[in-house]
Amino acid sequence: MTIHLPTLSDSAVPLVAPVTVVDERGREKEIFIPGERPLTVYVDKQELVTLMTLGGAPEALVLGYLKNQRFVQALDEVVSIQVDWEVSAASVVTRNGIKALKERQEKRTVTTGCGQGTIFGDILTDLESIALNPGARLDQPTLVAVVDRVRQHHSVYKQAGSVHGCALFRGAEMLMFIEDVGRHNAVDAIAGRMWLEGLLGDDLIFYTTGRLTSEMVIKGAQMGIPFLLSRSGVTQMGLDMARRVNLSLFGRCSGEHFLIYSGIDRFIPSEQQAV
Amino acid sequence: MTIHLPTLSDSAVPLVAPVTVVDERGREKEIFIPGERPLTVYVDKQELVTLMTLGGAPEALVLGYLKNQRFVQALDEVVSIQVDWEVSAASVVTRNGIKALKERQEKRTVTTGCGQGTIFGDILTDLESIALNPGARLDQPTLVAVVDRVRQHHSVYKQAGSVHGCALFRGAEMLMFIEDVGRHNAVDAIAGRMWLEGLLGDDLIFYTTGRLTSEMVIKGAQMGIPFLLSRSGVTQMGLDMARRVNLSLFGRCSGEHFLIYSGIDRFIPSEQQAV
Repeated sequence: MTIHLPTLSDSAVPLVAPVTVVDERGREKEIFIPGERPLTVYVDKQELVTLMTLGGAPEALVLGYLKNQRFVQALDEVVSIQVDWEVSAASVVTRNGIKALKERQEKRTVTTGCGQGTIFGDILTDLESIALNPGARLDQPTLVAVVDRVRQHHSVYKQAGSVHGCALFRGAEMLMFIEDVGRHNAVDAIAGRMWLEGLLGDDLIFYTTGRLTSEMVIKGAQMGIPFLLSRSGVTQMGLDMARRVNLSLFGRCSGEHFLIYSGIDRFIPSEQQAV
Repeated sequence: MTIHLPTLSDSAVPLVAPVTVVDERGREKEIFIPGERPLTVYVDKQELVTLMTLGGAPEALVLGYLKNQRFVQALDEVVSIQVDWEVSAASVVTRNGIKALKERQEKRTVTTGCGQGTIFGDILTDLESIALNPGARLDQPTLVAVVDRVRQHHSVYKQAGSVHGCALFRGAEMLMFIEDVGRHNAVDAIAGRMWLEGLLGDDLIFYTTGRLTSEMVIKGAQMGIPFLLSRSGVTQMGLDMARRVNLSLFGRCSGEHFLIYSGIDRFIPSEQQAV
């Protein structure tokens, strides 16, 4: 079977900018702040949405956004994605047009992982149909290694703060790391890249600096990933949804510490810890 | 002039829930996590949007959302807002119907303070028309007192984490404090309550635990507030927009520390600090 991969531009931009600020003692300092750019997505010349993004992986972001919002179901529906920062536009060409685009836009859920994100249509009700790999396991040394690997990673966050990072791991191996102003953009970009690389979530581990809210759990489940790790916490609805699909949620991950919120049967503790 | 205030229900719900988690040593713990509930907004029986919210101030949230998204321009356009958690719905009745509701929905900006928030229509381009009070000043002791007041406040965040808080101050006096799963919801709820109480932003101070991104700056400016304070940082576009309307941004506020990103002419430093 031949899969037609979309043709993509490669339009990453500088992610941080220097600014001069004044501190509480009146001292001028030069610091870095993260970029934030509007990127208007046109699908077959029809304006769809404007995303505010850091701009590090715009093509993967657009692809992952279209996938996670279910505007496209198969990769070969997308002929090309061309990002042009001169006009702040991503031009998407599809093979057959996007069916019922307008109708899908009508029913909209404004979710609030942290902002007011959008999920279209019937995603919430479709959660039940997702079957995560029942055999996937995560052992404690791998979990700690993942958290440590993220900590060591050179990131925009370390340089400028004010962004969220998401990373994808197979065991303790980091497969990708993407930051964005919004963590939903970061997870969409990871989804886009997974799709392009033909990666299944099956036995992968997803790490995010952001909270595990309903929307993050939905996206993780949609990507087929059984393990979500966060430096931060979990909301009630995020937990409810994770339990429904037996997704393992690990929150407050820091150093050797973590809390298991759900899916503990997928976790293999280190032996010495059995008290 | 008689202003007809909308009739509102009073449907706050429990904001946190206990859950049992397991830590890295296999110990069970009971902790609290914040609630997250869908609230579908119907305007004159027409479904508009579903907001995911903590649920602490749902009526103010809906009103502020309608205002900040510019679905309503005047308070007396809204006859009533009734929130019924049994059906996860907020029913809004307007006096004359919301004109061109569907058209306003068509052009949509998915912003990413942290999630993918939505701003409708031409809000971005309207920023220029906003004139903030040129006489407003903030002195250093007041700024430090504001940060300290927030630190002392009893909050869902302290109990359960994973929420964003927003607060409104006149001088060092806290006028309101609202938390939500998403900081955009928290700021919308503050906007709604300000509107109900007839408060102008004029000389007020807005504090948020979240980052000052473009969307937060736009909302602050729309509320007429000249001072935005954050425990966190500032994005490039947030800073650009603040400069355009001479809004004062203070980031990294913690204890006595802060950084001034813009609008320094509105700031009165303490004398002893002139080095």
